[in-house]
Amino acid sequence: MQKKTNKNSNQNKNGSQTKENKNQQKNKKNQNAQQKQYKKSFSKPRNGSAKKHKKTPDETPVRIAFLGGLNEVGKNMTLYEYKDDMFLVDCGLAFPDPEMLGVDLVIPDFSYVEKNADKIKGIVITHGHEDHIGGLAYLLKTVNIPVYGTKLTIGLIQGKLKEHGLLSSAKLHEIAPGDVVNLGGFSVEAIHVNHSIPDAIALAIKCESGTIVQTGDFKIDSTPIDGGMIDLSRFAQLGDEGVLCLLSDSTNAERAGYTESERKVGESFEVLFRKAGKNRIIVATFASNIHRVQQIINVAYSLGRKVAIIGRSLENVVNISAQLGYLNVPENVLINADLINKYPAEDVVIITTGSQGEPMSALSRMAFSDHRKVEIRPNDCVIISATPIPGNEKTVSKVVNELLKLGANVIYEKMYDVHVSGHACQEELKLIMGLVKPKYFIPVHGEQKHLRKHAMLAEGMGIGTENIFIADNGYVAEMTSKSIKSVAPVPAGKVFVDGYGVGDVGSVVLRDRKHLGQDGIIVVTASVDYETGQLIAGPEVISRGFVYVKEAEELIAQARKVAEKSLESCYYSNISDINAIKGKLRDAVSHFVYEQTKRSPMILPIIMEV
Amino acid sequence: MQKKTNKNSNQNKNGSQTKENKNQQKNKKNQNAQQKQYKKSFSKPRNGSAKKHKKTPDETPVRIAFLGGLNEVGKNMTLYEYKDDMFLVDCGLAFPDPEMLGVDLVIPDFSYVEKNADKIKGIVITHGHEDHIGGLAYLLKTVNIPVYGTKLTIGLIQGKLKEHGLLSSAKLHEIAPGDVVNLGGFSVEAIHVNHSIPDAIALAIKCESGTIVQTGDFKIDSTPIDGGMIDLSRFAQLGDEGVLCLLSDSTNAERAGYTESERKVGESFEVLFRKAGKNRIIVATFASNIHRVQQIINVAYSLGRKVAIIGRSLENVVNISAQLGYLNVPENVLINADLINKYPAEDVVIITTGSQGEPMSALSRMAFSDHRKVEIRPNDCVIISATPIPGNEKTVSKVVNELLKLGANVIYEKMYDVHVSGHACQEELKLIMGLVKPKYFIPVHGEQKHLRKHAMLAEGMGIGTENIFIADNGYVAEMTSKSIKSVAPVPAGKVFVDGYGVGDVGSVVLRDRKHLGQDGIIVVTASVDYETGQLIAGPEVISRGFVYVKEAEELIAQARKVAEKSLESCYYSNISDINAIKGKLRDAVSHFVYEQTKRSPMILPIIMEV
Repeated sequence: MQKKTNKNSNQNKNGSQTKENKNQQKNKKNQNAQQKQYKKSFSKPRNGSAKKHKKTPDETPVRIAFLGGLNEVGKNMTLYEYKDDMFLVDCGLAFPDPEMLGVDLVIPDFSYVEKNADKIKGIVITHGHEDHIGGLAYLLKTVNIPVYGTKLTIGLIQGKLKEHGLLSSAKLHEIAPGDVVNLGGFSVEAIHVNHSIPDAIALAIKCESGTIVQTGDFKIDSTPIDGGMIDLSRFAQLGDEGVLCLLSDSTNAERAGYTESERKVGESFEVLFRKAGKNRIIVATFASNIHRVQQIINVAYSLGRKVAIIGRSLENVVNISAQLGYLNVPENVLINADLINKYPAEDVVIITTGSQGEPMSALSRMAFSDHRKVEIRPNDCVIISATPIPGNEKTVSKVVNELLKLGANVIYEKMYDVHVSGHACQEELKLIMGLVKPKYFIPVHGEQKHLRKHAMLAEGMGIGTENIFIADNGYVAEMTSKSIKSVAPVPAGKVFVDGYGVGDVGSVVLRDRKHLGQDGIIVVTASVDYETGQLIAGPEVISRGFVYVKEAEELIAQARKVAEKSLESCYYSNISDINAIKGKLRDAVSHFVYEQTKRSPMILPIIMEV
Repeated sequence: MQKKTNKNSNQNKNGSQTKENKNQQKNKKNQNAQQKQYKKSFSKPRNGSAKKHKKTPDETPVRIAFLGGLNEVGKNMTLYEYKDDMFLVDCGLAFPDPEMLGVDLVIPDFSYVEKNADKIKGIVITHGHEDHIGGLAYLLKTVNIPVYGTKLTIGLIQGKLKEHGLLSSAKLHEIAPGDVVNLGGFSVEAIHVNHSIPDAIALAIKCESGTIVQTGDFKIDSTPIDGGMIDLSRFAQLGDEGVLCLLSDSTNAERAGYTESERKVGESFEVLFRKAGKNRIIVATFASNIHRVQQIINVAYSLGRKVAIIGRSLENVVNISAQLGYLNVPENVLINADLINKYPAEDVVIITTGSQGEPMSALSRMAFSDHRKVEIRPNDCVIISATPIPGNEKTVSKVVNELLKLGANVIYEKMYDVHVSGHACQEELKLIMGLVKPKYFIPVHGEQKHLRKHAMLAEGMGIGTENIFIADNGYVAEMTSKSIKSVAPVPAGKVFVDGYGVGDVGSVVLRDRKHLGQDGIIVVTASVDYETGQLIAGPEVISRGFVYVKEAEELIAQARKVAEKSLESCYYSNISDINAIKGKLRDAVSHFVYEQTKRSPMILPIIMEV
């Protein structure tokens, strides 16, 4: 309503004036005053960029290249480009799908970043989850650009860079909500949001063409454990100033209503801990959910229980968080995991990892009676304070089942509100849209179904379909005040990390791994005379992962005969090309094996010329 | 109440008389009258077994051996034993877990059945789902016992046996609800229940020691599509007569309330089909859910649409069901799948398979634009009439995402009630327990968490914990009127079917497949002189599934050198034992590769003596 009363004589060439132009001009007018009263400038404006902001907006488009995080959950990475300046938001990893056999983790394709290394002014990280920071070490090995993040985020990044030996060379800069980072023609402001890790921020990204808001992962928690409620008023101010585009978190776009407050979980803990009576309590949660850990510690303390932290990642995060002041641990509450059994069951709470049923995690080891320090006892109260991430349902069930077999009482999934999401549901998403009032809307962070649903919510809020941009990894959105469109894509894909190798496992290797894993391998070796091609040793037939050899000696012996025949027939037919012989050998053995077993192991013929 | 007024002077030796004895005696007294008015005897009583039934009950225990279906979902199989007679209930398959690499399906271990082949009088099948009939063909190859099932169940079994070439030898007997099959000392009565396939039955199993009720899979549907409501009054009569033990379906024991009627889904179809307007409709559902198919056909017919059936298993089931009268298809409604494109979109409904996102299914092929007959068009209305079975969430999501990318409107999961379960929820489970009033309770069909939850429901109904038996595969429950206890277990496990092989893939093969699948293989071959042990050809180093060889030539060349050095050092150290040489070679290459790549491919050394 305010906007309509805001007179503005600055019209564009053809005399018409769009609402967005108005917004942008208002935006510029308000900006300096705004910045003074609200923000402290984090870095000095460079090259007079503050002055540039006062110029009439030209129509140089802003481009957003999506390097990860679309049509997937994980490896979030976004590149902003305006004139000759670029910067990045987040650099996450994704966990491999089951078909990515042997792959440890998946990171974005950095080739577009490498190509434009000289233009990239830095990377801003929204929060410290793996899907936002997990690729950073690999990125910095390629382009050592400045990194900006809040205190806890930087703390967690430091831990990662240390492992990669990059800590001394990395250029890490701590920022706080309200700070503005100038990155070439961009200024980037951090805005406090709620999420399942402390110190998460949204970003207000400004350049001469307008303001873009990227929410990062967020929820609206009016009673968070620490750090205060999401800074809704700043979103509102930005909306009033005029926002060209909103990029918003789609993770929970399919879920109606509101996400419950993290505090709710604490209330459940209170009830369940009391109910546990004289029994031991074990709570499994995400390592990074410091507020959850805080609540467990608080309730344990109030009931006079000691707390042991078990699980490497959890110990690590707890240490960093406590050092940086994000976790308040009363004295004499934490006990060493080795001392658990020195305390009576009723005095102990164990916080541990493995809420997703990860096979090597502490909880999983406990469930399968394979943990060095903790043996599950009948009546132990085990609380799995998480919901299974899609794909993990079965592994979580397995752990629950094993714990039950050991006699534990297990609280899992939707029982008793022992978990709340860290992401906004539909009503929250709409609220943010309503506050930010963007001209363009780009749903991010999610699979197609999440993006579509989020787009439908935006449509419902009155944003025209032509102003909603559903992107994919590699897409580039180009926007001016007039339109948003897709322009030439950039390279973006999955790079597999396997051991030390980054990118050396690709589709050929994975196809072979799949084949080997499904059907095993039969190696057929033979030595032939270099001159005559006559068989002088072998053939030997050796299989792995095909049949249990001791029970299939006859089959293997027959396969050996088939191979021998094939080699002899080559010799008598004067086939001397080694590849031709190998081909015949492979076909003969493969055919025989399929006829006998209806299976297709990989056949690997090796012929040594002696 | 009735029982208490039922005077009975027949007391056991020590003068006390348990409630169960009373029940059993009443049971015997009522039995003949009951059978006349309610049941027709299916087979003639053999060896005067009817007379035996009139004898005073002795305390020969009944034994129930669980050969499958516990702590798992699938391969249901139960063996009943009384004196020298045995019979089986169901013989299902399970689908392999992802870690069972290359395994096609999993069937129960039949060794206990084989050992007791002469005692086994037959097998009764409760319904035609894979997890109840899928192992039957393999069983009958081992022991060709008579098979009893309802009309549709037998029809579906015939289809399977035909594939295995067993149709002519199999002894198939059709029964109907109310029929009683005499199997040695047992009589087995079929009771009509509701489920997600027509013609499902529960069983009332009687022997001199008492009555055991096994529900099979069931739900209580007061408005089923066909076949009438579950025969609750028969359960009530049995309960009044006295039931020793109840075995009940635990699949939905975690879910509160009632399962909705199948009819609800039809109502949703009505709404959604109308909403689809001028667009094509594609519905994916389970092939065996004939009532679902019936409802789709009905709604399509009422709106003047034609129906095409796509998907081999669906076509198969639809044909059998229509032939046997379980599916009523109005004339001129079904069209050939090849003719779909000859009709306008608004006139077509396609029913197809793939509701679980199975990669080779029709819907999955359509989603990935890989189906020969159906190309997804923008605005196609695709309804996935199923919920993902745990473990399938991700594959279903993938299909949904791809369909959305093609512009289809997709109705999935909890949207619009397009699916209801075929299994009873907590209130139904309690209702059955309340009607049957068993002395002992054994929760079956489900993982530990389902069994436990079901046991808790039974406790809540007043069944003492000492009378609740939570079993596992291989457990044997032995019961008399005095107690239920676990006795010596029997062999029961997973037998893997891979191609033609049944049981020839075991833990060693799977371990190798996992290793090969994760890290690939490096084969190192060399020819050595038979006499001197000197290297005369090679070593060659060949890898598959390890690295992309073209980019790792240097690494492979180095590995070759490491292998050569190792062989030379053996030669110079006078190590001539071929296994010792292989061991050294394996260690050297493995160590080198791990140092270089942090990966552990399988190393397969092959040394040919020439």
